[in-house]
Amino acid sequence: MANITKKVSWSSRGDERTPLLNGSETRRHSRESSAGGAVFQIGRLSTVDLEEEMMSDEDSVRGRPKEIPHNEKLLSLKYESLDYDNIENQLFLEEERRMSYMGFRCLEISRWVVCGLIGFLTGLIACFIDIVVEQLAGIKYQVVKQNIERFTEVGGLSISLILWAVLNSIFVMVGAIIVAFFEPIAAGSGIPQIKCYLNGVKIPRVVRLKTLVVKVCGVICSVVGGLAVGKEGPMIHSGAVVAAGVSQGRSTSLKRDFKIFEYFRRDTEKRDFVSAGAAAGVSAAFGAPVGGVLFSLEEGASFWNQMLTWRIFFASMISTFTLNFFLSIYHKNPGDLSNPGLINFGRFENDSVAYYLYEIPLFIAMGAIGGLLGALFNVLNYWLTIFRIRYVHRPCLQVMEAMLVAAVTATVSFTMIYFSDDCQPLGPEHTEEYPLQLFCADGEYNSMATAFFNTPERSVRSLFHNQPGSYNPLTLGVFTLTYFFLACWTYGLAVSAGVFIPSLLIGAAWGRLCGILLATISATGSIWADPGKYALIGAAAQLGGIVRMTLSLTVILVEATGNVTYGLPIMLVLMTAKIVGDYFVEGLYDIHIKLQSIPFLHWEAPATSHWLTAREVMSSPVTCLNKVEKVGTIVDTLSNTSTNHNGFPVVVQGASSEEPAKLCGLILRSQLIVLLKHKVFVELARSRLTQRKLQLKDFRDAYPRFPPIQSIHVSQDERECMMDLSEFMTATPYTVPQDTSLPRVFKLVRALGLRHLVVVDDENRVVGLVTRKDLARYHLGKHGLEEMQLAQT
Amino acid sequence: MANITKKVSWSSRGDERTPLLNGSETRRHSRESSAGGAVFQIGRLSTVDLEEEMMSDEDSVRGRPKEIPHNEKLLSLKYESLDYDNIENQLFLEEERRMSYMGFRCLEISRWVVCGLIGFLTGLIACFIDIVVEQLAGIKYQVVKQNIERFTEVGGLSISLILWAVLNSIFVMVGAIIVAFFEPIAAGSGIPQIKCYLNGVKIPRVVRLKTLVVKVCGVICSVVGGLAVGKEGPMIHSGAVVAAGVSQGRSTSLKRDFKIFEYFRRDTEKRDFVSAGAAAGVSAAFGAPVGGVLFSLEEGASFWNQMLTWRIFFASMISTFTLNFFLSIYHKNPGDLSNPGLINFGRFENDSVAYYLYEIPLFIAMGAIGGLLGALFNVLNYWLTIFRIRYVHRPCLQVMEAMLVAAVTATVSFTMIYFSDDCQPLGPEHTEEYPLQLFCADGEYNSMATAFFNTPERSVRSLFHNQPGSYNPLTLGVFTLTYFFLACWTYGLAVSAGVFIPSLLIGAAWGRLCGILLATISATGSIWADPGKYALIGAAAQLGGIVRMTLSLTVILVEATGNVTYGLPIMLVLMTAKIVGDYFVEGLYDIHIKLQSIPFLHWEAPATSHWLTAREVMSSPVTCLNKVEKVGTIVDTLSNTSTNHNGFPVVVQGASSEEPAKLCGLILRSQLIVLLKHKVFVELARSRLTQRKLQLKDFRDAYPRFPPIQSIHVSQDERECMMDLSEFMTATPYTVPQDTSLPRVFKLVRALGLRHLVVVDDENRVVGLVTRKDLARYHLGKHGLEEMQLAQT
Repeated sequence: MANITKKVSWSSRGDERTPLLNGSETRRHSRESSAGGAVFQIGRLSTVDLEEEMMSDEDSVRGRPKEIPHNEKLLSLKYESLDYDNIENQLFLEEERRMSYMGFRCLEISRWVVCGLIGFLTGLIACFIDIVVEQLAGIKYQVVKQNIERFTEVGGLSISLILWAVLNSIFVMVGAIIVAFFEPIAAGSGIPQIKCYLNGVKIPRVVRLKTLVVKVCGVICSVVGGLAVGKEGPMIHSGAVVAAGVSQGRSTSLKRDFKIFEYFRRDTEKRDFVSAGAAAGVSAAFGAPVGGVLFSLEEGASFWNQMLTWRIFFASMISTFTLNFFLSIYHKNPGDLSNPGLINFGRFENDSVAYYLYEIPLFIAMGAIGGLLGALFNVLNYWLTIFRIRYVHRPCLQVMEAMLVAAVTATVSFTMIYFSDDCQPLGPEHTEEYPLQLFCADGEYNSMATAFFNTPERSVRSLFHNQPGSYNPLTLGVFTLTYFFLACWTYGLAVSAGVFIPSLLIGAAWGRLCGILLATISATGSIWADPGKYALIGAAAQLGGIVRMTLSLTVILVEATGNVTYGLPIMLVLMTAKIVGDYFVEGLYDIHIKLQSIPFLHWEAPATSHWLTAREVMSSPVTCLNKVEKVGTIVDTLSNTSTNHNGFPVVVQGASSEEPAKLCGLILRSQLIVLLKHKVFVELARSRLTQRKLQLKDFRDAYPRFPPIQSIHVSQDERECMMDLSEFMTATPYTVPQDTSLPRVFKLVRALGLRHLVVVDDENRVVGLVTRKDLARYHLGKHGLEEMQLAQT
Repeated sequence: MANITKKVSWSSRGDERTPLLNGSETRRHSRESSAGGAVFQIGRLSTVDLEEEMMSDEDSVRGRPKEIPHNEKLLSLKYESLDYDNIENQLFLEEERRMSYMGFRCLEISRWVVCGLIGFLTGLIACFIDIVVEQLAGIKYQVVKQNIERFTEVGGLSISLILWAVLNSIFVMVGAIIVAFFEPIAAGSGIPQIKCYLNGVKIPRVVRLKTLVVKVCGVICSVVGGLAVGKEGPMIHSGAVVAAGVSQGRSTSLKRDFKIFEYFRRDTEKRDFVSAGAAAGVSAAFGAPVGGVLFSLEEGASFWNQMLTWRIFFASMISTFTLNFFLSIYHKNPGDLSNPGLINFGRFENDSVAYYLYEIPLFIAMGAIGGLLGALFNVLNYWLTIFRIRYVHRPCLQVMEAMLVAAVTATVSFTMIYFSDDCQPLGPEHTEEYPLQLFCADGEYNSMATAFFNTPERSVRSLFHNQPGSYNPLTLGVFTLTYFFLACWTYGLAVSAGVFIPSLLIGAAWGRLCGILLATISATGSIWADPGKYALIGAAAQLGGIVRMTLSLTVILVEATGNVTYGLPIMLVLMTAKIVGDYFVEGLYDIHIKLQSIPFLHWEAPATSHWLTAREVMSSPVTCLNKVEKVGTIVDTLSNTSTNHNGFPVVVQGASSEEPAKLCGLILRSQLIVLLKHKVFVELARSRLTQRKLQLKDFRDAYPRFPPIQSIHVSQDERECMMDLSEFMTATPYTVPQDTSLPRVFKLVRALGLRHLVVVDDENRVVGLVTRKDLARYHLGKHGLEEMQLAQT
C-alpha cells in the first residue's frame, strides 16, 4: 500500500498537472441567491492551510517534504472523476443514428470477443505467476533445506539462517526496487485502487502496461522472497490492467494503435471492461468465477445491466478455464479441468464437512473473534501507514524497509522452527512439500516448519486438510501470534502483494487451534470438531474481519472449497465478523482509501443528510461559457491554474440583454482541448471550406491522455476568433433544482455515474455545479454528519 | 399461466377501476411547440379500435366475450406503475430531518429483522409444501401400486388405469377450481408476475394473502395430481407474497394492523423486500441462496445497493436454513443441515464428475440442442396460449381442461409403462421409491416406471444418479418425446405449478440418452461418458432453452448439484442454449409477459433509438394543477374517466399573467385522494385551527389500496374551496429537456425507477410527461425499431 503513501508524499512535485473539477470554491451555506450576475464570475480555489504548510517545507531533495502532515478530515482535490455518462453531443448522436442494427450487433459481438480476450490473458498471467513462483520458491526452499540438513548435524545453523535471510532479502529487494523506483502505484494488492476506479475516481497510471509488468514481477519477487503475502490480490489489479489495455485496441506505452475497438475509447465502455477484468482476476486467483462477478458488482457496479453481467461472467469463466488448462499441462495431466484457481483449498469431502445446529453459535463466536482480530490488524496497520506516510516516503527507504521485513520474516521463521519441538511422523503419502527433519527423530518432521517453511498457499492447505493431530496447540498459537504481526507489518510495504492469503493463514491457524481445543473439551469431540473445518471457519472469520466483504467473499470461499455445504456457516461468520469489526474501525481497503483522501462515493448519502439541499452542497459560482465563445476566453479559462475546472456549463444569452442566460449544454475540458488543437474556429471554417470536419474519431484518438492546455499554441490572432460549441457540447445535461435534497442528488449522481450535475433555478439559469467531491465530503462521523475539508494535497 | 389469459379476458368486467398514467394522448411527432397555452388542457385518451370491438361483443355471461382478439403489437394501458422514487415532499423531509442517527439504525435493524422473518416463513412454507406433497403422493402411489400389483396377475389392469386417472383428476380438479374460481393470478409459476413487479409494473392482487393460500394449496394439488409440473417455481411467488405481507406489518385481507413497520409502507421499500422474498423462494426451492440473490438481481434490481444485497442474501440463507432444519427433523435426523432445498440433485462425487477438454464441444452441441428444443417448446406453448386466450377463458372450461390433462397424463404414463419391456434388476439398496414389477421377472422392476411412476423430482434424481445401464435408450427416447408434449400442454393451465422440474426432466432424459449413445460410439466410452453427467448437462440445456436465464441459473444448478466443478460446462451450455433459442423466439416468461401486453421495461433502450427524443416520446399535453388549486378542479380532473391520470405536474403562475407557468412540483393521484378524504382545504384550516395536521401516517395508512375518487364525497360548497398542494407535492421532480434522446431518458427512468418524468422546455415550462408505457412502446422488431399501440385492454 506504499503507493498510496507515495502519492500523498509526492504531491508537491507537481510533475503531473491534474486538472480539478469545476467549481471548487468552498463558500458554503450561502443561502443568498448567487444567480444572475455572479454566473460568469470565475470560481476561485480555496487555499487550505495545509497547502501553505507544504509549500514552506524546505526539504528539497527531489522536492519532497520530510514529513507529510496527515489529516483524516481532508478530501483531496487532485483526483479527477471518470465520466460514466455518455457525452451526447451532435457528433455522437449522428454516429449512433447512422449505425444500423447490424452495426450494434457487431459491437456487441466485439464486446464479447474483448471479454474473452481479457479472460484468456488474465488466465495466462495467473498461470505465468503461479509457475514462476513455484519454480523459484522450489529452488529456494531446496537450497535452504539442503543447507539446513547439512548443518543440523555439524552445528552452525546460523549460516543456514543467514543464507535464508539473504536469499529472501535479495528477492524482496528486486521486487521493492522496481515498485518503489519505477511504478509506485503497483505496490500493494491494487484492490483499493480498482475499487476507486470502478467507483469513478481516476487514479493516475493505475491501468497502464508498465504498472502491469511491475505488478507481475513484483508479486513474484515478494512471494518468492518469503514475505507474509499472497499472489491473489494482485491478480485483480492485473486483470483490470489487461482489460483496460485490450479494450482500447492500442497501447500508448508501446505506441501501437491497432485501429480496432475505437468505439470503446471512452470511460463508460472502459469501466465495463475493467469490471470484467477485475472479475477475471478474482476468478483466476480463487477459481471462483461467480465470486468474481459478485466482487465486481459489490465493489463497482452501480447500474446493473444483464448483458454486462453475462459478459463479466464469460470473462471470468474463460479466465479460470485458461488457467486450469495450462496448469493441467504443466502438471502433466493435460485436459483435466477440475483444478481451478491459484489458491486451491483442496477437497472438502462431504462426510467430514457436515455441521450441526449446535455448532452455529460456535461459528458466530469465531466470527466475532475474527472481527476483533481483524479490527486490531486494521488499527495497527493504520498507525503503521500513518507512520510510513510521514517518515518512510523515499524510495530507497522503502526498499530498505522491505528488505528489513524480509530478513526479519526469515529470522523469526527460523527461530520458531529452531525452538519448536513439535515433531510429527512423516506420513507415507509425503503430503509435505519440504519436510524439515531438523532435530526430530528419523521419519518425523518439524510441524512448525510446515507452517513457516512453505509458500503461504500450501500452509493454508495443510491447515485445512492435515489429519487431526498434525499440529500441537502451542505451535499454532505461537504461529498465529507471530504471523499476525508479520502480516500486519508487511501490508503497506512498497512491494506488490496481497493480504488475502496471510489473512486466511492467520485465521486458519487460530481456527484450527479452536477446533483442537473444542475437541479436547468435549468428550465425543473428535468426531464433530474436525480441526480442518474449524480452520476454514477461522480463515473466513479473519479474512472477513480484515477486508469486510460479505457476499462476494462468501461465494469466493465456497467456490474455493468446492463445496456448497459451508455456505451458511461462512456467511454467518463473515456477517458477524463484519458487524463486530465495523464497530471499531473500517475495512482495510477503506482505511487506505481514506488515508489517500480519495473522494470515494458510498452507496447512499449519509442517512441524516436530508436537511442539506443542492443549494448548500453545490459549488458556486460556476464558470460558464457562451455557446459561441471567444477563443481567448476559453484559453484563459482553461489556463487558469487556480481553478483548473473540468466541466463548463454552456449558456445562451436571451434575445434581449435583460433576459437571463439559460443553460443549454455542458462541455468538458478534454473536448475543448481537442477543439483548440484542431483549431475548430468559426472564422477558419469559413475561409478553409475544404477543411475536414472534426469527427468523434479525433476525440477518441486523444482519449484518455488529453494534452495539457500549456502544450497547445494559440496565436494572438487566433485568440480573437470564435468557437461554436453547439455541435460538441452535451446538449441535454442532467439538472436538478436548487432545493433538491442531498440524498436525492446523491442518488442521481451515483445511479448514473455523473461527473457534473448542473444545479439550476426555476428559470433554467445555472446557479451551481455538483461534482463527486461535493457529495463525498459529507460522511457520518461520531458526532453525526461531518463535513470534510477539500485540500490540494 | 392461465391467470394471464384470464386477465386479458376479464378486462371488460371493469370491477377494478385501474387509474391510468397521466398523459395518455397518442398525438405523436408533433414537433410544433405545445407549450404555453396548451399546458392546462386536459389530455384525452386515444380510443384504439380494439376497445370498440370488445365493447360491441355481445357474449354477456358475466360480461366476458367468447373470443378475445389478440394482437402482439399492443401495450395494455390498464397496468399501473410502481413508484420507486421516494415522494420527497415537505412532510417526508421533515420526518427524515427529525429522525436521529439512532432512528436510522433502528430502521436498518428492523429491515434485517423483516428479512429474517421473510426467510423463515418462506422456508416454513416450502417445508409444508414438501411434506404434504410427499405424504399425499406417497399415499397415492401406494394405492395405485397395490392396485396394479393385484391386477397384474389376474388381468384387468384397465381398472388400475382408471383408478390412477381418477385419483389424478380429483387432485387436479381441486387445484384448478381454487385457482380458476378464487384467484386466477395464482396460476402458473408466478415468475413472470414477480418479474413484472420487480420491473415496476403493478400486477393487481399479485402479492395478497389470498393469492398465497391458493398458490400453496394449488401447487400441492397439481404435483400430487401427477401433472408434469414442479413445486419450485411457485416458491418464488410465495416468497414474494410473504415478503410483501410481512414488511407491511399488517394484512388488509385479515383486517389486522400490527402498527409496526409503518415506515416501509411505500413502493420503494416494499420492492426491496419483495426482492428478498423472491430470493428466499429460490433459495428454498433449490437450496441455492446465492442463486436466489442472483435471480433477484438478474430479474429485478436496477440499482444495486450493497446493504440491500446483504439483506437479500440473509433472507435467502435463513430460508434454506429453516427448510433444512425442519426437513432434517421430519427425516428423523435432526440437526443435520447438509440437505438443502426442495429439489436436491443428489451428490455428484468429484471422481465421477471430472470432464475433459474434448468434451467441451459436445457440451456446446448439447446446449444448441437444448436451445432448439426450448424454442420449439416455447413456440408450441405460445400457440397454445393464444388458443387458450381465445377459447378457454371461462373458469369451468379451464377446470375441465386441467382435469383432461391430468387424465391424459395418467393414461399416457400407464400406456408407456404397460408397453415397456425394459426390466432392470432391483438393486440391494432399494433406491427406487415405488418400484413397479408389472410384467418383469421377480427381483426386477420396470424402468419406464421409475421415470413416470414417481414425483418428477425423484425422476430427475434417478436420471442423474442411477448406475449406467439403468435405462435403455428406447425408454429414454419415448419418455422424452411424451413428456415434452405433456409438459408443454400443462404449462399455462389454470393450476399453480412451475416449469423448472419438467424442463429438467426432459433435458435429463435426452441428456442421458446422449451419454449412452456416446458411450456406445466410443470404445473407451464407458469411462468418460458417464450418463449421469450428460443427464445434468442435458437438463441444464433444456431448462436454459426454455427460460433463458443465464447467470442465476448457472449458480442455481451449481448449488443444487453441490459441486462447483461443473460451473464452466453448465455456463457454456446455458449460454449456447440462450443464443440458439433467442434466434427463434423469446424465453417462456417473456412470451407470457408479452402476451399480457404488459409495459415491461428492458435493461436498455433499443440500440437504434437514438433518433428519437423526449419530444417524440412524451405524452402531451399534460394535465397540470396549480400550486393552490380549486377543489372542484381537482375532483373533476380525478373523476375524468377518459383520462384517469395518475401524476400531475404542479405549476406556479408568474407574477404577471404574461409570464408562463413554471414547473414547481409533482403530485400523485393517490396523494390527492388522501388530501380530499381528509378535506385538507385552505378555508377549513383557517376556520378549524385545532384540526390535526395531516401527517405521513395518513398516507401510509391508505397505502397501497387508495380508495377511488368516486367513493369520496365532496359537497358543492367544498368544491369552491382551495387546496394548497405545496406541502404535499414532490417539490423537486426529475426533469429532462425536450431534446434528450430516448436512450438517455430511458436510462434515467430505469436507473431511478421513476414513474413520471417531466419534460420541460428551456424556461422550465411543462411540455410533456414520460411514463413507463411511453418507453416500453418502442422495441426492436424484425424491420428495425417498431412502435406498439396503446390499448385499453
